[in-house]
Amino acid sequence: METAVLLISCPDRRGILAEITGFIAKNNGNIIHADQHIDFQKGIFFMRIEWELEGFSLKKSEIEKAFKPIAEKFHINYQLHFSDEVQNVAVFVSKYDHCLYELLYRFKVGDLKGNLKLVISNHEDLRETVETFGIPFYYFPVSKENKREVEGEEIELLKRENINLVVLARYMQILSGRFVNTFRNRIINIHHSFLPAFVGAKPYHRAYERGVKIIGATSHYVTEELDQGPIIEQDVVRVSHRDTLEEMIKKGRDLEKLVLARAVKWHLENKILVYDNKTVIFD
Amino acid sequence: METAVLLISCPDRRGILAEITGFIAKNNGNIIHADQHIDFQKGIFFMRIEWELEGFSLKKSEIEKAFKPIAEKFHINYQLHFSDEVQNVAVFVSKYDHCLYELLYRFKVGDLKGNLKLVISNHEDLRETVETFGIPFYYFPVSKENKREVEGEEIELLKRENINLVVLARYMQILSGRFVNTFRNRIINIHHSFLPAFVGAKPYHRAYERGVKIIGATSHYVTEELDQGPIIEQDVVRVSHRDTLEEMIKKGRDLEKLVLARAVKWHLENKILVYDNKTVIFD
Amino acid sequence: METAVLLISCPDRRGILAEITGFIAKNNGNIIHADQHIDFQKGIFFMRIEWELEGFSLKKSEIEKAFKPIAEKFHINYQLHFSDEVQNVAVFVSKYDHCLYELLYRFKVGDLKGNLKLVISNHEDLRETVETFGIPFYYFPVSKENKREVEGEEIELLKRENINLVVLARYMQILSGRFVNTFRNRIINIHHSFLPAFVGAKPYHRAYERGVKIIGATSHYVTEELDQGPIIEQDVVRVSHRDTLEEMIKKGRDLEKLVLARAVKWHLENKILVYDNKTVIFD
Amino acid sequence: METAVLLISCPDRRGILAEITGFIAKNNGNIIHADQHIDFQKGIFFMRIEWELEGFSLKKSEIEKAFKPIAEKFHINYQLHFSDEVQNVAVFVSKYDHCLYELLYRFKVGDLKGNLKLVISNHEDLRETVETFGIPFYYFPVSKENKREVEGEEIELLKRENINLVVLARYMQILSGRFVNTFRNRIINIHHSFLPAFVGAKPYHRAYERGVKIIGATSHYVTEELDQGPIIEQDVVRVSHRDTLEEMIKKGRDLEKLVLARAVKWHLENKILVYDNKTVIFD
Repeated sequence: METAVLLISCPDRRGILAEITGFIAKNNGNIIHADQHIDFQKGIFFMRIEWELEGFSLKKSEIEKAFKPIAEKFHINYQLHFSDEVQNVAVFVSKYDHCLYELLYRFKVGDLKGNLKLVISNHEDLRETVETFGIPFYYFPVSKENKREVEGEEIELLKRENINLVVLARYMQILSGRFVNTFRNRIINIHHSFLPAFVGAKPYHRAYERGVKIIGATSHYVTEELDQGPIIEQDVVRVSHRDTLEEMIKKGRDLEKLVLARAVKWHLENKILVYDNKTVIFD
Repeated sequence: METAVLLISCPDRRGILAEITGFIAKNNGNIIHADQHIDFQKGIFFMRIEWELEGFSLKKSEIEKAFKPIAEKFHINYQLHFSDEVQNVAVFVSKYDHCLYELLYRFKVGDLKGNLKLVISNHEDLRETVETFGIPFYYFPVSKENKREVEGEEIELLKRENINLVVLARYMQILSGRFVNTFRNRIINIHHSFLPAFVGAKPYHRAYERGVKIIGATSHYVTEELDQGPIIEQDVVRVSHRDTLEEMIKKGRDLEKLVLARAVKWHLENKILVYDNKTVIFD
Repeated sequence: METAVLLISCPDRRGILAEITGFIAKNNGNIIHADQHIDFQKGIFFMRIEWELEGFSLKKSEIEKAFKPIAEKFHINYQLHFSDEVQNVAVFVSKYDHCLYELLYRFKVGDLKGNLKLVISNHEDLRETVETFGIPFYYFPVSKENKREVEGEEIELLKRENINLVVLARYMQILSGRFVNTFRNRIINIHHSFLPAFVGAKPYHRAYERGVKIIGATSHYVTEELDQGPIIEQDVVRVSHRDTLEEMIKKGRDLEKLVLARAVKWHLENKILVYDNKTVIFD
Repeated sequence: METAVLLISCPDRRGILAEITGFIAKNNGNIIHADQHIDFQKGIFFMRIEWELEGFSLKKSEIEKAFKPIAEKFHINYQLHFSDEVQNVAVFVSKYDHCLYELLYRFKVGDLKGNLKLVISNHEDLRETVETFGIPFYYFPVSKENKREVEGEEIELLKRENINLVVLARYMQILSGRFVNTFRNRIINIHHSFLPAFVGAKPYHRAYERGVKIIGATSHYVTEELDQGPIIEQDVVRVSHRDTLEEMIKKGRDLEKLVLARAVKWHLENKILVYDNKTVIFD
């Protein structure tokens, strides 16, 4: 069953919902999901609407043109996606392999619907793991001196391979503003704390020192400010004085890999709208 | 801000969403919430739509008549509610007071939007507690012999007081089919287990015996079959071998009162649709 | 069944556990709970041990003297408690009543084993609520100008009433160092965020702005630095873009009252050891 | 750091704890973990005690003999383990690979401390996955007719390979009483529901039909009665009417693999005591 998805945000006004659903109904579309949200504080309307293309009176190539007048009338920002599109994904890693394995496994078995085209690392350690899964592995050693240059090469590679989404699976390097802006809202990071607690380095150590009773993990889009981007998903697990730092880290890793996998999944299924440094998740 | 709410279920067909939102838009209604759901297995469409009455071109008394042609065209079951309606509520208790207190408190401070008209009990124990909150307390001792007769009196009282919702706050009597049918989908019970585990009596004792690692509580609408009605809400808490039966019961009570309060809240805010012995919760 | 409890912390050394349990066994004590913990990073040994007084060969008044040589040999910090001691508790509130109600209810029904002697507030709003439960209510209006003086009066009242534990049930004033030091490790606060996220004012507003997917509440002992004291308990609940700020606040309140009640319960049952700005909870 | 672990259960009597810790102290052992539990209902004492072997005055081979008099005096059931022992593990699978992958990964990176010696399956599907990790894969097709015979061959293989633990990672065959008794308390299964809810086949389908709001997974030791063995670990995740059956199954799989991995980990670290069809987990 092939479908089309419209992701919409615009100033909230009377009649938007009727106009959009009317557009699909008039063209004989069968809506299978529609979820809508209004942020009353900001006065913004959000929608995700998905309908079957079979029986729809417009061809895929005609939809955008036909929808444009409505978009203009309501000042709508929209994305139009089709279920047969497949996004190309690149994963960045350093030495930790738990998130990487989770992604390799999920792409392999089709739980994540995308094309995992390549893995980039600043270390050689995980080459064999990646290549065992038949995925090309690129080694880009990064130092203070060559960082700008290496990032340039990475961007070039990502563009050449038509990468749509970059996933930082515990990649221990901070990306430059140039890199972040090239893939705005298309870089997902996993941070190993319950943000905004423990922004930056060594969050488990700091959580242990602080004596928290619950630890967490956060997946978010990367922006220029460290660990300040729109949060996609968070999860937590209970710890106690019985947990050593090592045990906290192990518990945390089980969170990290699931929280990252969920974020990547929603992104690839076009279920996320970003606005105002937040996310609307149409789950 | 006064609003109207339509709760809708019907066979899923093309154009329903457009037709309903078009009806509101055409009459100049400002939609503030719309949530819709399709059960594809059963082919049923569900919707909750809420719009402001200010500026709406139909009077409250005219809405139903104007909507009827759409309802007939799509074979829609619907409920129409207005935000200024207040439901009358009766609470049934026996001797446990934790759920009762939670409800008394929440009705008092307005967290639960309803009119708590009376409390009925088969024991005298909680009279003072109830009366301290200024709520009338009715004592109906029940025995095997008088059960049918007493239930008749209770139904009569509930009807006389125009009760819309009955809440069983750990009421330790099983209601007859006659009672249940009189208030179909309008009796909410709290069961002190994670249903369908431990249906019936003494669920904590049985959970303790079975050695479960998590216990739960379940709020549900009451049907003729014990603990088999549509589930509204559930929640759980972790236990371990360190918890004695008494400690499990205490942990469970903290769940029970919150799980029951949430169910009552959603019911009073017209956010629940029942179908096929399940619930759709438009939260 | 009357019992004695020893709470112990000391530098970790061979033979401590054997020595302590030997002391109790030698005097014919029946140990009913023993929980012990070692912080290997710091090299500290912690223990909570509880035994029956019936059949114990030492009188209550003799235990401390008999234990002293062991305490000295191992440089043990200890607290000795008896199950028939009842602690005196004072609750501080401002205008929010959800935590207050929870405490009033739990002290009333005996779920919290203590003597709730009085409630202090900087507003008159909750007088009736408190007095309905038969608890004395003291109104101490606080301003910048009179703060030092008022705190002096409060401390005097607390001492006159032999208060052992102060509970800040959403009390919206910051206590001075003098107050905090008078009741070191005996003031429990509830902070309406998942600390260390959102220290200070308006945590729900900031959580809403940040777009977090989970909110929390934290109970902790009060120290001179705001929201930096030893954490006793935390809990969380999921939120989404569907939750308005108001709904987040409501969800959070249900957490706050339970998280605070758990902390007070453990404190009153002598289950908490504080060290190094952390807690060991012997649950 | 090499250590010894004693796992103990016996009738509760005065002086046990002192006697056991005295035994270790007398021989100059440094206790690094001690956790003890009493089931007062049944009058049973449980303990896990771990101490360093360096500096201990008894050789490994002498410990058991030296401890025997205490064991006899108190009627103690005990297991003595050493941290340098490595258990041999066999995993049984059918066609689902999510639990298998999790185990293969964790054994490979050393998060699970054991020797994964072989994988047995009643299907050929996962051979490549297993062999990629360098683990021998055995295919034993099972039918009604040959079941008894095949199980005999499997038992023989497991004995030949000195298997200490059998893990059923979504193995879709019911083991005979003979098999179960050969590996009593050494077969861990993952059941894809929150037991005792939905014992037996197709638990997700039945959870979906019942309209539950939370689903779960349960790891347990296998006994002759289906899904009735001692529960080791459980976890849950929230679902709603928005989740189709397929989505529930996917959410559930993320639980299954973690809940199974935790159980296997605790077993291999000798942290589980079974009694009375329950478990004590010394975490």
